[in-house]
Amino acid sequence: MSKNRIITLLTDFGLSDVYVGVMKGTIAQINPELKVIDITHQIPSQNIAAARFCLMTAFAYFPAETVHVAVVDPGVGSSRRAIAIKCANCFLVGPDNGLFSGVLNRERALALAKRSEGKPAPTGAAPTKRIAAVELTNSKYWRTPEPSSTFHGRDIFAAAGAHLANGVRLEELGEQIDPASLVQLQIPNCTVTATGIEGCVQYCDRFGNLITNIPTNCITGNNWSVTISNNFDAICIPSGKTYSDSKPGDLIAITGSDGWVEIAVCGGSAQSVLQLELGDKVQIIYR
Amino acid sequence: MSKNRIITLLTDFGLSDVYVGVMKGTIAQINPELKVIDITHQIPSQNIAAARFCLMTAFAYFPAETVHVAVVDPGVGSSRRAIAIKCANCFLVGPDNGLFSGVLNRERALALAKRSEGKPAPTGAAPTKRIAAVELTNSKYWRTPEPSSTFHGRDIFAAAGAHLANGVRLEELGEQIDPASLVQLQIPNCTVTATGIEGCVQYCDRFGNLITNIPTNCITGNNWSVTISNNFDAICIPSGKTYSDSKPGDLIAITGSDGWVEIAVCGGSAQSVLQLELGDKVQIIYR
Amino acid sequence: MSKNRIITLLTDFGLSDVYVGVMKGTIAQINPELKVIDITHQIPSQNIAAARFCLMTAFAYFPAETVHVAVVDPGVGSSRRAIAIKCANCFLVGPDNGLFSGVLNRERALALAKRSEGKPAPTGAAPTKRIAAVELTNSKYWRTPEPSSTFHGRDIFAAAGAHLANGVRLEELGEQIDPASLVQLQIPNCTVTATGIEGCVQYCDRFGNLITNIPTNCITGNNWSVTISNNFDAICIPSGKTYSDSKPGDLIAITGSDGWVEIAVCGGSAQSVLQLELGDKVQIIYR
Repeated sequence: MSKNRIITLLTDFGLSDVYVGVMKGTIAQINPELKVIDITHQIPSQNIAAARFCLMTAFAYFPAETVHVAVVDPGVGSSRRAIAIKCANCFLVGPDNGLFSGVLNRERALALAKRSEGKPAPTGAAPTKRIAAVELTNSKYWRTPEPSSTFHGRDIFAAAGAHLANGVRLEELGEQIDPASLVQLQIPNCTVTATGIEGCVQYCDRFGNLITNIPTNCITGNNWSVTISNNFDAICIPSGKTYSDSKPGDLIAITGSDGWVEIAVCGGSAQSVLQLELGDKVQIIYR
Repeated sequence: MSKNRIITLLTDFGLSDVYVGVMKGTIAQINPELKVIDITHQIPSQNIAAARFCLMTAFAYFPAETVHVAVVDPGVGSSRRAIAIKCANCFLVGPDNGLFSGVLNRERALALAKRSEGKPAPTGAAPTKRIAAVELTNSKYWRTPEPSSTFHGRDIFAAAGAHLANGVRLEELGEQIDPASLVQLQIPNCTVTATGIEGCVQYCDRFGNLITNIPTNCITGNNWSVTISNNFDAICIPSGKTYSDSKPGDLIAITGSDGWVEIAVCGGSAQSVLQLELGDKVQIIYR
Repeated sequence: MSKNRIITLLTDFGLSDVYVGVMKGTIAQINPELKVIDITHQIPSQNIAAARFCLMTAFAYFPAETVHVAVVDPGVGSSRRAIAIKCANCFLVGPDNGLFSGVLNRERALALAKRSEGKPAPTGAAPTKRIAAVELTNSKYWRTPEPSSTFHGRDIFAAAGAHLANGVRLEELGEQIDPASLVQLQIPNCTVTATGIEGCVQYCDRFGNLITNIPTNCITGNNWSVTISNNFDAICIPSGKTYSDSKPGDLIAITGSDGWVEIAVCGGSAQSVLQLELGDKVQIIYR
């Protein structure tokens, strides 16, 4: 049954306490051969939106069948469901609070793209079920039949993830649930306007790069810039290919490495210069 | 001889310098197959009490025979001993400064509990020696016969830990020492009072949860709360099952995931609200 | 072809974003068996000099043939070259901006030392080529033929490092370049003076220890101290063997674990006490 799938961990536990180490110990108690890769443990405390963005950004860079265990879980111990999901390319394990919405949207888009490339489905054929989900109700696959009320990361999610990585089938982990019932985290879409595209800031990384929700493949012209405006003022930021296309200290808009328009400062922090917050508006303007 | 036991690392070295990476390189030079798991490297600098608490909390979640290398070592290069200990369920490697006291107390309690469950020992039988200890005097198992005076983590502890994980017997690492001679770190006990239990804060985690030294299995009633008092004021904190049993921003006392009474704030930091320090008194009051 | 060499990572990406996890995913997609060890990801942002010091300090503690992938890369996407280097004892992969200067200087010094120990080379023999370098121009060994302009750590360096660790020969990764053409990062040398040695601070670690550029094996007397002076004042710091040779709070100069003279405070931070910056002068004075 042993599969030795890779497990990734993404949490808001930080690295100063023992919580992450204890999750890895729990996995090693189930199978010491399993390989664990940290995505990050420094999601801002209880920030499900940031966790959603980070997992959505990272998951596609891992081998097929990787098991992503993600725990940003303000509702731990309440009635929120503990879940596992099987997608076309990976498994997801964690709380049902919307943190997997980004991955699931991308998996659905990928599935649609593949289907539109291939042959038409035979008449009357059922649509392929590419996503299956269960609630983690089978205590046989928990670390202990009496899990703590406050640390499901250790007692339920790490254990269930390790068993999935070992080759246990999704259906054995608990009762099947309708993927349509999974909690969705709504984030603003960007919209096409008369002069360009309007979107917002969806993430700020540790370099101070501001990552927008505008996909780079929506930009249809070669000559574009980004405008940020409030009631009093507007800043126009030229576009470039990479950070060093601007002078040190200057703002630049680039097509980022993960497919979003980003605002950066060569050798500095766009966040420090612009003081934007998540959700603040940005506009692509064609010239 | 190769055993491929897991090695854990717990230090106050932080992650910004190369010290932790260099310990892992040293282990890989001895056997690149050995698996290393970080417990934490962000113990507050030279804080042996915090290291003691963290290792005591984490060790039981790892597979049997795991080798825990722990280095919080203000006395490095002085006459303090470098030691390795064999317990019933694990090995411990590090400085003899009390940081293993917590693990050893738990191992002793576990051994007592097992003995009281089992058959009585035959009359006159020697008590089982469950704990053995050596001083790391055999330079054959150091990284180099001339170790640095300031980085035993690399030159002695990582190397000795790797050899233990490889299957080298404890006795080969140096001269046996009496486990009773190991340095103990005394921490306050909690005491049963007329109205409840009196204890203190023993750790504060990165979420600002205040972890007391009151074991949850000492609480004998269902109706209890926690009182914190100084000369001028007293705060009464209701108990609950999990963080979300209180309203956002409210204080709550819970039975924590590692067996201690904890004080938390739903969606916030109890430490920020209460400004308690390690050792500050807390009281369980029954109603 | 599989070699399963160890890969190390050293970057300024920090651990709060997904960049490091994504590099590890990229490596696992090429070969999930490869072992990755973090040296550090907390090099101060875009600080090539700190990266140079850290890699030079760490590399020798890893097994032979380890592949060190180092990415502190302010010029990413510009015309700076992406390179891989084969030394006597390791491989280096990253941008050609001087961050490998320290390792290469040490490798050259080691090669000279070995040659001077051994037999004289036969007359007319070509000098052994111990260092070879290529520019990473072969897109077959990139993650994708269309790499991002801003994240070569993922698309070029992690991928090339994984292929090297797998056993791909250096020459296959791209066109050979003259090792003498690699960018050098000049750092100040220390100089012997009438009364001792003059050097400077080259690194400050997380404990506040100030690491100078004065090699401990240059100190020729037993009785020495360190003097720090400015226009108004001079501080004389006694030398000792280890931190605890001074009283808590007192400054002490020691011969550090990596072969440099260091200034420390027992139980404190020399950086906080002295407020020195990188490059600030320090003097060894013999008595």
